[in-house]
Amino acid sequence: MGPHPAVAAIRLAVRRVLHDVLNDYAPPSLTAPQHAQSTRTDRSDRVARLRRSAAPACPAAASATAAHSPLVLVACSGGADSMALASALAFEARKLSVRAGGITVDHGLQDGSALRAAEVAARLTAMGLDPVEATAVCVGRDGGPEAAARDARYAALDEAADRLGAAAVLLGHTRDDQAETVLLGLARGSGIRSLSGMAAVSGTRGRYRRPFLQIDRQTARKACMVQSLPVWDDPHNTDPAYTRSRLRHEGLPALEKALGKGVVEALARTAQLSRDDADALDTWAADAADAVRDETGQLECAKLYALPPAVRRRVLRRAVIEAGAPAGSLFARHVEEVDRLITGWRGQGAINLPGRVEALRQSGRLVIRQG
Amino acid sequence: MGPHPAVAAIRLAVRRVLHDVLNDYAPPSLTAPQHAQSTRTDRSDRVARLRRSAAPACPAAASATAAHSPLVLVACSGGADSMALASALAFEARKLSVRAGGITVDHGLQDGSALRAAEVAARLTAMGLDPVEATAVCVGRDGGPEAAARDARYAALDEAADRLGAAAVLLGHTRDDQAETVLLGLARGSGIRSLSGMAAVSGTRGRYRRPFLQIDRQTARKACMVQSLPVWDDPHNTDPAYTRSRLRHEGLPALEKALGKGVVEALARTAQLSRDDADALDTWAADAADAVRDETGQLECAKLYALPPAVRRRVLRRAVIEAGAPAGSLFARHVEEVDRLITGWRGQGAINLPGRVEALRQSGRLVIRQG
Repeated sequence: MGPHPAVAAIRLAVRRVLHDVLNDYAPPSLTAPQHAQSTRTDRSDRVARLRRSAAPACPAAASATAAHSPLVLVACSGGADSMALASALAFEARKLSVRAGGITVDHGLQDGSALRAAEVAARLTAMGLDPVEATAVCVGRDGGPEAAARDARYAALDEAADRLGAAAVLLGHTRDDQAETVLLGLARGSGIRSLSGMAAVSGTRGRYRRPFLQIDRQTARKACMVQSLPVWDDPHNTDPAYTRSRLRHEGLPALEKALGKGVVEALARTAQLSRDDADALDTWAADAADAVRDETGQLECAKLYALPPAVRRRVLRRAVIEAGAPAGSLFARHVEEVDRLITGWRGQGAINLPGRVEALRQSGRLVIRQG
Repeated sequence: MGPHPAVAAIRLAVRRVLHDVLNDYAPPSLTAPQHAQSTRTDRSDRVARLRRSAAPACPAAASATAAHSPLVLVACSGGADSMALASALAFEARKLSVRAGGITVDHGLQDGSALRAAEVAARLTAMGLDPVEATAVCVGRDGGPEAAARDARYAALDEAADRLGAAAVLLGHTRDDQAETVLLGLARGSGIRSLSGMAAVSGTRGRYRRPFLQIDRQTARKACMVQSLPVWDDPHNTDPAYTRSRLRHEGLPALEKALGKGVVEALARTAQLSRDDADALDTWAADAADAVRDETGQLECAKLYALPPAVRRRVLRRAVIEAGAPAGSLFARHVEEVDRLITGWRGQGAINLPGRVEALRQSGRLVIRQG
């Protein structure tokens, strides 16, 4: 009898990501001839080899390989999603000769959080993960409580991944988290990039991987239950002081009631489609940014005018940021005002933009400079 | 003392659209020399001329112009949005020498709807609109009650616009309607085109115009109140049997509670940005569709592979529709399956698509044909 469908689903999701990690993995010091032939694309080949080398027939070879096996960490809060992820990683890593470790971050925001982190670490160790670390961070205040906690968490994960030489850090974000992220982006109203949610692969050298973006929260919870994994429900997740929590417990259910049960899946699909669309348009804008300049590198208004609005606004946004405007302070309305120098020219003066950048039209050229 | 801010806002919105209509208007039989010089772009000039010609100093000239003035119709349900729109049209049309008329559609779905339509028509006439018509339609069942009512309504509006020779038909959709439409599109999860809501200009020769897409429902309601315009609240708008009604009264308020009051504005802005993005990508895909064909017109897999995924999927979608698949039955998953013939080729057989279309890979070419 195979595993429960929920367990099978989370394991399959993790297995796929581990294959990708192995495929992308360049061992630190492989100089032996049999390794020198390997290329980045012979994935199935390398997977097969690593599987063979994991066999206990030749302990010396196995241990030599272990040292060359990539280390994959799981970031685990102790909640159902990341506990399910940790269990699947522990299971699959053994089969693929990936070394599997875990990190739990103590945000220090709740009484007893250090004890909680120690408990989570003990559970990860009990699953067979090694190394396992509990890391305490100091959460600041920048950008609100959720953003500050996130920044502190990723800084700790980055530090641990660097120090331990991890090839990847798995994150337990589910399809439900993705749907919430799309709605949060929608609320900003700043275009399709903000609708594209979380990437399956992100961070320095694609370090962060999200195997569960197609798995729903219910499946992760079920997988914990049938594996008798104790899970911890973070009270922040139900605290209506947090936007995401309000969205999860009120906004999204109301939307599902109005629009039907497929909303979460539709939002997650929107994320993927929007990401691809935004990537394509960014590529176009990068090409166009060169094509609309004259021989001295100045932006030509006539050439900008000829671009589709969506591309022109991206070119303008890039140019303003390159001139020194901080991306986070540059809003759609700023870009639209610059755009009117091209599409609605009636002799406007210089436009002031964030970061002391100004944009003005001069003899058919658009000048964007820092004052 | 000027008008109430709400009235000023709706009038300004209508004035802008009437200027656009005048600008786009080609009078049926202008052969007099002073008209022959006019071009499509001398809008301010023509507006000024029409204003002058509306002056009562020379009755003969004024009446000659009236015959050449464009007729603009308002589609009016008797609800606050379209009553506000009718009042603003009546006011602005007088100043611009536009002939203003009105149509109300009796969907025949409620007891007394014919009487209601006659009342609305009487109110439009009292505002000074001429011609005014009440048109009864027969609502079918195709695509559900909301879609069937909409289809019947637009068919009636098209017929009336053709028969009366109207240059434009104004529709009272507000920013709130737009936000709801974006959420309905989001629930389909079919990409950014479905997030782009309603267009400011749509229909045959850009006949339909939506002046209120930036005006919120509250403003329209307020404008009716301060002008003492009686409005009718369609019980369908609060009937939870209708998806849009559930969205309006439950979904969107819950989302606003979770995400903040700016959600409606953010959704409307998302619509505009998504529309521009989708247009740009469609343009790209149209160009790419030619570039990826060999000299015999067949799609080359290698060239398709080199396109960004967002562009490639649009090219494939177009090709499948051109081969005879009905656009409405062709879903993202179909296109993704065809895409895997390019990006995940492992010897798959022919893929069956709606409309008896099949796609298969043959000697490096992608063959899409109707069986």
